[in-house]
Amino acid sequence: MNLAIRFDKLGTETAFAVAEEARAIARTGMKVYPFHLGDIDIKTPAHIIEAAVRAMNEGKTGYCSNYGVQELREALVGEINRSHGTAYAAENVAIQPGGKPVIQKYLLSLMNPGDGVLYPNPGYPIYESLIGFYGGKPIPYTYRETSDGFHLDLEKLEASIEPGTRFLIFNNYHNPTGAEAGPEELQALSELVLRHDLSVLCDEAYFDVRYEGQSTSLASFPGMIDRCVILYTFSKKFAMTGWRLGAAVGPRTVIDAIAKLNVNDESCSNHFVQYAGLHALQSSQEPSRELLTILRARRDLSHGLLSVIPGVRCSLPNTTFYLFPNVTGLMERLGFSDYEPFRRAVLQATGVSFCSRIHFGTPLPGERERYIRLSYSGINLDSIAEGLRRLWEFTESRRSRAPGSGG
Amino acid sequence: MNLAIRFDKLGTETAFAVAEEARAIARTGMKVYPFHLGDIDIKTPAHIIEAAVRAMNEGKTGYCSNYGVQELREALVGEINRSHGTAYAAENVAIQPGGKPVIQKYLLSLMNPGDGVLYPNPGYPIYESLIGFYGGKPIPYTYRETSDGFHLDLEKLEASIEPGTRFLIFNNYHNPTGAEAGPEELQALSELVLRHDLSVLCDEAYFDVRYEGQSTSLASFPGMIDRCVILYTFSKKFAMTGWRLGAAVGPRTVIDAIAKLNVNDESCSNHFVQYAGLHALQSSQEPSRELLTILRARRDLSHGLLSVIPGVRCSLPNTTFYLFPNVTGLMERLGFSDYEPFRRAVLQATGVSFCSRIHFGTPLPGERERYIRLSYSGINLDSIAEGLRRLWEFTESRRSRAPGSGG
Repeated sequence: MNLAIRFDKLGTETAFAVAEEARAIARTGMKVYPFHLGDIDIKTPAHIIEAAVRAMNEGKTGYCSNYGVQELREALVGEINRSHGTAYAAENVAIQPGGKPVIQKYLLSLMNPGDGVLYPNPGYPIYESLIGFYGGKPIPYTYRETSDGFHLDLEKLEASIEPGTRFLIFNNYHNPTGAEAGPEELQALSELVLRHDLSVLCDEAYFDVRYEGQSTSLASFPGMIDRCVILYTFSKKFAMTGWRLGAAVGPRTVIDAIAKLNVNDESCSNHFVQYAGLHALQSSQEPSRELLTILRARRDLSHGLLSVIPGVRCSLPNTTFYLFPNVTGLMERLGFSDYEPFRRAVLQATGVSFCSRIHFGTPLPGERERYIRLSYSGINLDSIAEGLRRLWEFTESRRSRAPGSGG
Repeated sequence: MNLAIRFDKLGTETAFAVAEEARAIARTGMKVYPFHLGDIDIKTPAHIIEAAVRAMNEGKTGYCSNYGVQELREALVGEINRSHGTAYAAENVAIQPGGKPVIQKYLLSLMNPGDGVLYPNPGYPIYESLIGFYGGKPIPYTYRETSDGFHLDLEKLEASIEPGTRFLIFNNYHNPTGAEAGPEELQALSELVLRHDLSVLCDEAYFDVRYEGQSTSLASFPGMIDRCVILYTFSKKFAMTGWRLGAAVGPRTVIDAIAKLNVNDESCSNHFVQYAGLHALQSSQEPSRELLTILRARRDLSHGLLSVIPGVRCSLPNTTFYLFPNVTGLMERLGFSDYEPFRRAVLQATGVSFCSRIHFGTPLPGERERYIRLSYSGINLDSIAEGLRRLWEFTESRRSRAPGSGG
């Protein structure tokens, strides 16, 4: 059987290949420090598990509505209206088996072949993959590194808009850079969206993963409510990654289209899992706060230990569970000109496993700075300390060699 | 936001509209007899629920492989190799959030725009919907009603093959007719597939829902293993419809493509649900046998009560949980020339809710016989008896009126 031609355009998460290499190293008996994956190594809170068990025992094991369970849709708009200052109704919600399905269903619902779609690069690799797979034109935009972390480059973004550019995928609280657009940037972005008549997918997967202050949604700005579809997920906030529960929230036309795709693709999301999600929203948020406390300690330790390595410059994001250090100086110092030999040399010598910029999109023309991404959601404090000490030792031992000897 | 042009081609399960009408009737206080839906009103066996709870408590709440949990893949090929006489390996399996996702992923993996796809009509409406949505050419084939139930019309099927017809969707143990192709028909079909160089999606959702004898897969016939992808589901056999667990089983090229779509669409299927599926496969099959015993009693009662209604002719399928009675005589007698007025008159007068032939595809040119579909998976014996008695009374009371007064 020959694959369909469109398959040439389907990408993947190349981070999975990194995970495979890490597993291969682990099988040799070497300790691996898993900074590569976006999973959470903390079990789902017991009270959420108990809610799932109750729902199963109550017989919530048959099909439910393709839109999702009504109580969950109502609770979720309650939560979103509180945090976003919006006035969504339950009819604006279509429950999904995870946050990720919203990307595919958003594009299928709205994008025609040839339509231009602005997407972040570096960014979550599924955007570029699915834009191309379904016949759209992927138009990358990027982030600037500043002394205050990463920021949108709105001028460049606007300059890249062409006739036929109709969509923007916006991942505020950004994987992999941790970039956060504050109210002023969001205001400017909302004006740009109106100026160019764009529709927006707001990927808010990390909206509630923040350590200080409050998140703000682009959907909250004037004129945006009719143009934005929000990707919501239960995965990060409630440590429910493997449960596959999320939602699309937006204008009814799109939500109805997405719900129609649900009928065609998978009928409905798991029935009893939705009651676990309902309970997660309605019960004490203390476990989510505890999760953030744990993640914050990991962030601070990782950031501190990375920052003492000569040639590494690392901003301290207030959101996500990623660090995106600039390693241009370090790679030069160690004699590496390419990402993969550097990543593999570190993995093989130290067991420290991470992704690099190339796992988040094809580097853009003229890009000279080098970055790696460390995730601290799946590694505890002891392993962070041990792993990053080994990384430091490795860089020191290589430093003593002649320049140019690496790679 | 305007929907994408491709949306004009997306169909749905119009049976959901029937369910909505039934709910509206129920809200008026009238008792509804739900013969319309394909769900099962029997709770998932307790030992399967317990396996899910164990997996959750063991922390199977994070992501797992996009191919599915390895133990489940192994157990599933064991099961399939036993029932199919095949020699699949675990690498031939990609776990899915339900059986239904296999339809979409099969088409996306293999079908190019313009390719012809043979699909059953009447049949599961999602086939036609997704063939068209992804740019293929839907080519219907149909079943003949015989004194021995419904059968493939292989001559007609072969006659409808055109240049560019590359795929066959085959639903042995067929929704809605209950048609079953035995070894001879399957042998002939396999030769047709080879003669015309087709690839086949074997939708085997009802493979294990049978009351006597043994099911046989097209994939078991010579030359078929490289041409067939099997849609497997845990939904029916284990009363797990709302859990959303299924699998694609087939050649590695397609399975790898489907697994790559999994990465893009939903990352993976729910982690702990897969351990429940593993337990379902590995533990006592007594609950599945009990389920079949219950369904069989419902089938026999429904069939018996339908058959005494003048103008109704109903074959007795050995598989699925559907009856597809010919109601041409009844509709004529009651003065109905169209399906929907007939269905609605029965629903409003008696509370008996069913689908008709039009919920399973657009009637074909020259089609003169009329059929309705009664599902007995979601209605107990008492309600079957009461509902079909009301249906009988309704047809008798209408009979006494002048011909032509209905509709």
